[in-house]
Amino acid sequence: MTITPPALSVFETLESEVRSYCRGWPAVFDRAQGSRLHDEDGHTYLDFFAGAGSLNYGHNNPVLKRALIDYIERDGITHGLDMATTAKRAFLESFQNVVLRPRDLPYKVMFPGPTGTNAVEAALKLARKVKGRESVVSFTNAFHGMSLGSLAVTGNAFKRAGAGIPLVHGTPMPFDNYFDGQMPDFLWFERLLEDQGSGLNKPAAVIVETVQGEGGINVARAEWLRALQSLCERRDMLLIVDDIQMGCGRTGGFFSFEEAGIVPDIVTLSKSISGYGLPMSLCLFKPELDIWEPGEHNGTFRGNNPAFVTAAAALNAYWADGQMEKQTLARGEQVEQALLAMAAESADPGVSLRGRGLVWGLEFTDPARASAICARAFELGLLLETSGPRSEVVKLLPPLTVSPEELDEGLRILARSVRETA
Amino acid sequence: MTITPPALSVFETLESEVRSYCRGWPAVFDRAQGSRLHDEDGHTYLDFFAGAGSLNYGHNNPVLKRALIDYIERDGITHGLDMATTAKRAFLESFQNVVLRPRDLPYKVMFPGPTGTNAVEAALKLARKVKGRESVVSFTNAFHGMSLGSLAVTGNAFKRAGAGIPLVHGTPMPFDNYFDGQMPDFLWFERLLEDQGSGLNKPAAVIVETVQGEGGINVARAEWLRALQSLCERRDMLLIVDDIQMGCGRTGGFFSFEEAGIVPDIVTLSKSISGYGLPMSLCLFKPELDIWEPGEHNGTFRGNNPAFVTAAAALNAYWADGQMEKQTLARGEQVEQALLAMAAESADPGVSLRGRGLVWGLEFTDPARASAICARAFELGLLLETSGPRSEVVKLLPPLTVSPEELDEGLRILARSVRETA
Amino acid sequence: MTITPPALSVFETLESEVRSYCRGWPAVFDRAQGSRLHDEDGHTYLDFFAGAGSLNYGHNNPVLKRALIDYIERDGITHGLDMATTAKRAFLESFQNVVLRPRDLPYKVMFPGPTGTNAVEAALKLARKVKGRESVVSFTNAFHGMSLGSLAVTGNAFKRAGAGIPLVHGTPMPFDNYFDGQMPDFLWFERLLEDQGSGLNKPAAVIVETVQGEGGINVARAEWLRALQSLCERRDMLLIVDDIQMGCGRTGGFFSFEEAGIVPDIVTLSKSISGYGLPMSLCLFKPELDIWEPGEHNGTFRGNNPAFVTAAAALNAYWADGQMEKQTLARGEQVEQALLAMAAESADPGVSLRGRGLVWGLEFTDPARASAICARAFELGLLLETSGPRSEVVKLLPPLTVSPEELDEGLRILARSVRETA
Amino acid sequence: MTITPPALSVFETLESEVRSYCRGWPAVFDRAQGSRLHDEDGHTYLDFFAGAGSLNYGHNNPVLKRALIDYIERDGITHGLDMATTAKRAFLESFQNVVLRPRDLPYKVMFPGPTGTNAVEAALKLARKVKGRESVVSFTNAFHGMSLGSLAVTGNAFKRAGAGIPLVHGTPMPFDNYFDGQMPDFLWFERLLEDQGSGLNKPAAVIVETVQGEGGINVARAEWLRALQSLCERRDMLLIVDDIQMGCGRTGGFFSFEEAGIVPDIVTLSKSISGYGLPMSLCLFKPELDIWEPGEHNGTFRGNNPAFVTAAAALNAYWADGQMEKQTLARGEQVEQALLAMAAESADPGVSLRGRGLVWGLEFTDPARASAICARAFELGLLLETSGPRSEVVKLLPPLTVSPEELDEGLRILARSVRETA
Repeated sequence: MTITPPALSVFETLESEVRSYCRGWPAVFDRAQGSRLHDEDGHTYLDFFAGAGSLNYGHNNPVLKRALIDYIERDGITHGLDMATTAKRAFLESFQNVVLRPRDLPYKVMFPGPTGTNAVEAALKLARKVKGRESVVSFTNAFHGMSLGSLAVTGNAFKRAGAGIPLVHGTPMPFDNYFDGQMPDFLWFERLLEDQGSGLNKPAAVIVETVQGEGGINVARAEWLRALQSLCERRDMLLIVDDIQMGCGRTGGFFSFEEAGIVPDIVTLSKSISGYGLPMSLCLFKPELDIWEPGEHNGTFRGNNPAFVTAAAALNAYWADGQMEKQTLARGEQVEQALLAMAAESADPGVSLRGRGLVWGLEFTDPARASAICARAFELGLLLETSGPRSEVVKLLPPLTVSPEELDEGLRILARSVRETA
Repeated sequence: MTITPPALSVFETLESEVRSYCRGWPAVFDRAQGSRLHDEDGHTYLDFFAGAGSLNYGHNNPVLKRALIDYIERDGITHGLDMATTAKRAFLESFQNVVLRPRDLPYKVMFPGPTGTNAVEAALKLARKVKGRESVVSFTNAFHGMSLGSLAVTGNAFKRAGAGIPLVHGTPMPFDNYFDGQMPDFLWFERLLEDQGSGLNKPAAVIVETVQGEGGINVARAEWLRALQSLCERRDMLLIVDDIQMGCGRTGGFFSFEEAGIVPDIVTLSKSISGYGLPMSLCLFKPELDIWEPGEHNGTFRGNNPAFVTAAAALNAYWADGQMEKQTLARGEQVEQALLAMAAESADPGVSLRGRGLVWGLEFTDPARASAICARAFELGLLLETSGPRSEVVKLLPPLTVSPEELDEGLRILARSVRETA
Repeated sequence: MTITPPALSVFETLESEVRSYCRGWPAVFDRAQGSRLHDEDGHTYLDFFAGAGSLNYGHNNPVLKRALIDYIERDGITHGLDMATTAKRAFLESFQNVVLRPRDLPYKVMFPGPTGTNAVEAALKLARKVKGRESVVSFTNAFHGMSLGSLAVTGNAFKRAGAGIPLVHGTPMPFDNYFDGQMPDFLWFERLLEDQGSGLNKPAAVIVETVQGEGGINVARAEWLRALQSLCERRDMLLIVDDIQMGCGRTGGFFSFEEAGIVPDIVTLSKSISGYGLPMSLCLFKPELDIWEPGEHNGTFRGNNPAFVTAAAALNAYWADGQMEKQTLARGEQVEQALLAMAAESADPGVSLRGRGLVWGLEFTDPARASAICARAFELGLLLETSGPRSEVVKLLPPLTVSPEELDEGLRILARSVRETA
Repeated sequence: MTITPPALSVFETLESEVRSYCRGWPAVFDRAQGSRLHDEDGHTYLDFFAGAGSLNYGHNNPVLKRALIDYIERDGITHGLDMATTAKRAFLESFQNVVLRPRDLPYKVMFPGPTGTNAVEAALKLARKVKGRESVVSFTNAFHGMSLGSLAVTGNAFKRAGAGIPLVHGTPMPFDNYFDGQMPDFLWFERLLEDQGSGLNKPAAVIVETVQGEGGINVARAEWLRALQSLCERRDMLLIVDDIQMGCGRTGGFFSFEEAGIVPDIVTLSKSISGYGLPMSLCLFKPELDIWEPGEHNGTFRGNNPAFVTAAAALNAYWADGQMEKQTLARGEQVEQALLAMAAESADPGVSLRGRGLVWGLEFTDPARASAICARAFELGLLLETSGPRSEVVKLLPPLTVSPEELDEGLRILARSVRETA
């Protein structure tokens, strides 16, 4: 494929320097369908990034598209603040029937504003209010968002520096496997809590991702998550699972924590919850935590009703039975096999892989290699991104609806890119 | 009109106690068009709240609706992160040609995430980065959002208490008219800045609304805004105008600060920028302030392309000439006359009114009266909200596209509600 | 007097650059008695600085000296932590009998560590604990100490910058006369407190000096102090009077707030409380505020028993009757008359004076003038310092035990210095 | 010995509830000499607490007493702010000749105010100023003082809670032996620093005690201290050794860090530096760090000249040769042997001991036991205190000048108290 330099002028002259993805993927995208995007010059790209996990059902999924257009055509409420609407009711009923009840999850549902960081801010506020304490424990290489509350529990030093004020009220703890077994799990955390002289400000809550996506595809073991839940119970801290990127089926089950058999106190969802890439987020919590005063946390776009419509359609279409989970695990195995082959083929002993469901990472000792692979893949028509603190991990986040053939096609491009950058 | 108790069950059982508007407006809304909403029981409501200012062009505006459906039908990119897309380009070009160039405004454009509080967080981060200082000055009764950065510069004590941590790094100053002339403008602020012993942490920036919507429809005079800009220049602070609610034509001109002839260093826009009630926001700043590193502030939904489509359509349909501004000012006069009549008719000398363009407030000494008026108006088919620190102000925010007849109808309902609650 | 350059070598080579007074007074002092110091080269200096108010009874006051030597000779406890000692009991009994009872003051007495900033830290901790709130209001040009808690309520920008972290949890309000009558007293403060949308974090306490010594000899009027006390009562804030520099008789009465007829909730004392220049401080508070847990605030040197000995001796020698107060007011008049004459003689209309008791300031529009006067006075054998945010005020703090002749001698040197620097 | 209830009335009625030591030692102390105190009822107590380490040369040491009385008699300057005085010069010269030069230590000397917490506040300010960063790393069970800056790096939860505001800008790390070898030294700290995604705010400095006195007599190994110094150098952090309790010979050498062969960037000294129990403290730092502006940190009592006199006398009397160090190590062995015997004799396998020089701890699994031992010892005429996060350690801090016979006497009382509380 030959790529002619795209006409980026207005982006370069008018848009802020803060833009990033467009730099690695120098194309002007126009249309998309399923696992593929098309740019205005007629090139097609297989998408293994899926809107950073926001497009689990692919681009412009036809089932959701139909529901969305019908809704818009019939002048359904678009902007509903937190008013009761028929679209919101349909979503709530679907969420209850398809997601919560079958899993015996008792959560209340809050619409905190339509972005992930809004959901995290709401979760942190609620935890602090419930416990009457300021401090929150997060983990190394966590990513929870860009507004100040979320940024304070995010690990990335570059993003943190952007705050312009000291980010306090949070303390990092080692994520699972951080020491490759050199230290028993939670030894440090537990000691800090039990020792009245440790100097740790007692936390209101612990916030955790089951798989750290931005942090480098770090997968927490189920037993680690269970031990964490137990620690939170014993030490009177709330457990918040940020399932914004790993929820909605990315790891197999609807929630990424199901596999571990834990029930967090608070859960945040966003990205793929609307199913169609429309802004929407949820904050879920146990009913006894619902001590919010009416209007204590609000936001203009927390009633993005078109998103409720596609969200309900997605739940009904994909989660009424166990097919989606099975399929994701099958596709995941396909990815794992291919990555194992790449690692084996590689001369470099520093190449390693990790993942769960349909989120995988291929790590290189040299970050430049990971970037080079993504750049080469783009030339070959595949969208891939790096992650990790040094951008040393090639991240695979294909749509869950990807076909085995598309998956195979993308994995072959990846393998070729790995080879060609060796 | 007789209202039968709506079936709210799933909202009451599943949704968090944090919900608020749905309590004052106990109906399940289904459809909407222009200035009117319809609930599932067949009642129709005239909307003088307009999504808290997010629906300046009315509900499901047919021009924008057409563009939106066309875009969805043709599988235009929905979720674009910050990738270059044809929809984003079209928006940027329209924004440049229709908004920035005719006003000779030099701004760079940042997409900081699709909600207002995201834009404010980005603005504060940038100001702190540029100036290397933490402190920001805000004003009494300011409202800037619910995430921690924005909340710290928001005045409302109830919302602030929700933070669960002390909100610091901000200092409130008196908004225009705060002392009814008992104190020269900026006397206190200027002394704090010039006195090396004042104890004020030197601010990086000042953040201001030209009309405080949530704060009680407090209208800053043009000369006050000019004096503020001059103070910022003299004292090396950036001036941030939060135009999230008052921008996009609410006060007449596209930006609410145009009338004062000032050019803020940073401007935030959201609410009506997409035109259709879809989540979208912008942070604008002078080019010399664009010192962001790529990716330093990001967010999953900052590329909500359907919103770009309706945003561009709205700019082209309504802002290519000066008609919208003229019409808004005319409608504003119609409101003012009606409110003057209500105040005159009222026995209560404590009733007062204020506003600009199509944002107006009718203040009562007794907050219970304001609430009662909104409740009665709802029964009579008119959506109205209160604002102000004690919810003592009835706020009027009709769509800018409201017809004179609709406006008259709503104002008559309001007048009746005022009378009946006397 | 001819001054030969003193041998400062070890000070210059070994002592930190942070030293300050020694720069303006380049002598090596050896002995002192009453109002006079002697350097090692045989020069004598009249002391109108009195250890920044720590030597109200003059240097090495013979009455206190006798008691001190006797105590040391007989091996009285020197270092007593917070153990009960006979010296501490004698002090407490004297303090109760001579100071508290005659003034009908109900205070409990805390020994918080022997420096002023320790007393302020204890006062702020206690106020925050009692009220369960973080924020404290201080005043423009306040000075309360150099440790982080005290520094956060201190106005001076240069000292604040030394903190190295943002100083938050405090808000400055205008001190009395800050606007020369352009604004009613407490208008701003009261509005901030009553307005639920003001953005002020509700304060636990207000900390104030009745006369700001470091801030430029700013004298609060009695009615202003009474209005402040009333505001604190109405708004549920504790009133802390920092009487470290102005207490122990500096303004006439033992406490500087007596004249206003107020009873603060918390009072800090230090500087002249030991009478002999030995480190000692007290934190006094109403009994109902004494919710400290044993050992919750401690410190190694809070039982500096030699200081208790001189403190008790000073109270018994000088405060058993009203002579000291009368004498101080008489000496104060002597100073005022002399300063009035200097101001009248001065060509400069910008020269003004202010003071109370035996603390006076002579302000110049040009800070360089104030420095030049102090430098010239030093050459002529008089120790004087500047104060104020720009060091524009010549400050007079002679010992309360100064004789009329010594006072006259010093005032004549000052007058000459003023003339010679015109 | 029979103890009659002492007359504590004025302490109970007038002094704040915050008092603590006086509760465990219900006597009114009157005189003291060497290792012994005498109460007003004629009882004598052997002192194994030594003013929490402030009386290394015993109570009212005759050599220092002579110098002190001579100075007072001849009207030497008592209160000198930071003026140059002959007494200060004599101290600086002694400190240079006796302490710094023989150890080849290059430090500049700052007098930051006469208490330990003042010295720590100065050290932290300077480190933050030099590095331009806010965060400081401290260790589990650290104790650095009660003012807000020092308290933020102190571990004790009870003391921290007294702050009344969240203590931030500090992060605790595990002290040496915190995990009994379950984790390699500095593994966690080093990973946090090297991982750009760890979420640790990069520290300006690390503050450490070589032996944690208040924290439970936790002794850092020399190799651990060396590794810490190396880590600080590699990671561009300043190393602050808080030698307030362990300096001035407590562990053998004048500085407690000498044994490890490290040279901290900043050192704090207080407690025994004056030698006589008079308030005094020092902050020492490498010359290149001396970027203080004149007067940037100040304090009323930083020129406590009588303390300079006794300090110089103590240095000259005890540190001109290596006798003191040798003697301390010998006495330490005597303590160790006795404690080993007690532990061996004890039925309880949970009894353990640790120490260095003349600071020792005897730990019990049951904190009530430690308290009971101290109470019994008091009845038997020995002053002892507990330390550690649960007050589970009996702490031995006899004067360095204790005789072998006194030491033996006290150790026998301790052994008896251990037996009788078993």
